[in-house]
Amino acid sequence: MDKRDRGRGRAPRHVKPEGLEIQTGYQDPLEEGVILGRNAVMEALDAGVPIDKIFIAKGDVDASLGHMASRARGTGAVVVETDRRKLDHMSKGQTHQGVVALASVKAYCEITDILALAQERGEPPLVVICDELSDPHNLGAIIRTAEAAGAHGIIIPKRRSAGITPIVQKTSAGAVNHLPVCRVPNLTAAIKELQQAGLWIYGAAMEGERTLWETDVTGPAALVIGSEGEGLGRLVAEHCDFLVNIPMLGKVSSLNASVSAGLLLYEVVRQRTGNK
Amino acid sequence: MDKRDRGRGRAPRHVKPEGLEIQTGYQDPLEEGVILGRNAVMEALDAGVPIDKIFIAKGDVDASLGHMASRARGTGAVVVETDRRKLDHMSKGQTHQGVVALASVKAYCEITDILALAQERGEPPLVVICDELSDPHNLGAIIRTAEAAGAHGIIIPKRRSAGITPIVQKTSAGAVNHLPVCRVPNLTAAIKELQQAGLWIYGAAMEGERTLWETDVTGPAALVIGSEGEGLGRLVAEHCDFLVNIPMLGKVSSLNASVSAGLLLYEVVRQRTGNK
Repeated sequence: MDKRDRGRGRAPRHVKPEGLEIQTGYQDPLEEGVILGRNAVMEALDAGVPIDKIFIAKGDVDASLGHMASRARGTGAVVVETDRRKLDHMSKGQTHQGVVALASVKAYCEITDILALAQERGEPPLVVICDELSDPHNLGAIIRTAEAAGAHGIIIPKRRSAGITPIVQKTSAGAVNHLPVCRVPNLTAAIKELQQAGLWIYGAAMEGERTLWETDVTGPAALVIGSEGEGLGRLVAEHCDFLVNIPMLGKVSSLNASVSAGLLLYEVVRQRTGNK
Repeated sequence: MDKRDRGRGRAPRHVKPEGLEIQTGYQDPLEEGVILGRNAVMEALDAGVPIDKIFIAKGDVDASLGHMASRARGTGAVVVETDRRKLDHMSKGQTHQGVVALASVKAYCEITDILALAQERGEPPLVVICDELSDPHNLGAIIRTAEAAGAHGIIIPKRRSAGITPIVQKTSAGAVNHLPVCRVPNLTAAIKELQQAGLWIYGAAMEGERTLWETDVTGPAALVIGSEGEGLGRLVAEHCDFLVNIPMLGKVSSLNASVSAGLLLYEVVRQRTGNK
């Protein structure tokens, strides 16, 4: 939160959704953390607001936008050229001048920070790797559950993943503020780094031969959760040490990503606390 | 699905959200299943589209609206008088003439249907009771997990709960089509009915003395999941036979409702399948 609050004085244009009664899933016109237009995005960069992603209208890239994009990249942001229609959609009809940025609510850390936290606490590392989760509600719920289960950090890929947006923060019930989140350019490289540090990598996958209950997860562990639509990526699955299955007794073939993550995380808690 | 499809020929005005790329949580102008205006709502009633809720602008109730409301109530719908501003919000600026209805994607069943399904399958009943869950994404995820865990049905209260709207259907990954959902006017009465049928009632609650792993859930069971903000209602908690706690090892004080439900449901699966 710190960085973000610091930037607040010069806060760019974003609207905080009111606590409206839910039930129907309606949302307010403009999401919190969405920054519209060239000036507002430049101001956010000037103010040190961490930016997750910048969407730029395809074909619109002039010198000033190019400059903005390279500044943003320099801060670790992902720059995406996209359809003007998508920008219109994100801006809910407000003027965006071909640029929409998504603010991140906190700075990302390194894998070594996560491992250091585990060491500091004297616990076997427990890490969650989210393989291209695009739904911020799922990501937020996973962060919340991971924090509650005593995990030491979350790893997400830089591309094709939700970032730590205000929606994620809200869905995480504030847990993002307590749990290190690391964003990596390449998940398989991150997995190798964790393996070298002595962690076992457990992927949640239908084709796993053993159930979560039959798998020993008491050692240093990273749990890999696949994306909503696709499950684990092929390469990522190949790099897992174990594929763990959650029995499906009905007709649906998979669980919500945050529910799968919760089951694996709490299986670690169960086994580590000696419950059976 | 059947009933709904049947009504489709005369389908009232509703817009099917395109499969737009997520990440930011934006939604299309009008949710699927939202029916606007007097004519459209009357047509939906005529066509036998199951209606979950009808919102009517406060102070606007003339004879024709009164007639519509009583027809809707006759089909089991909940009629709510509400602020015109809320209707404007739900209609995203489109004309609503003081009436907005939410369609249900399937007809509700009775508690006895749920128990009959368990008996038919020769299994100890496994039921999930959702105590005033207002977030359709949570309700959908719970229905999905319940179906996957082999549960026999879901019970929701008639008021202060999301109904089985198209969002719920989508979030459930179609599981609503395979799992009986029962809507009751009074949860404590439903709990008593289940107890009389021999079920034990397990409420997920922080203050539970035993963890889920220490609680025997192999018998006929109903799991009660509290609302996102409040947890279990006081009266409902008092009617539970056991309060079960999920250990919280971090700083957040609770889990997402669908994650809690998943943990309890799969604890039943674990114990019933003899895994330890």
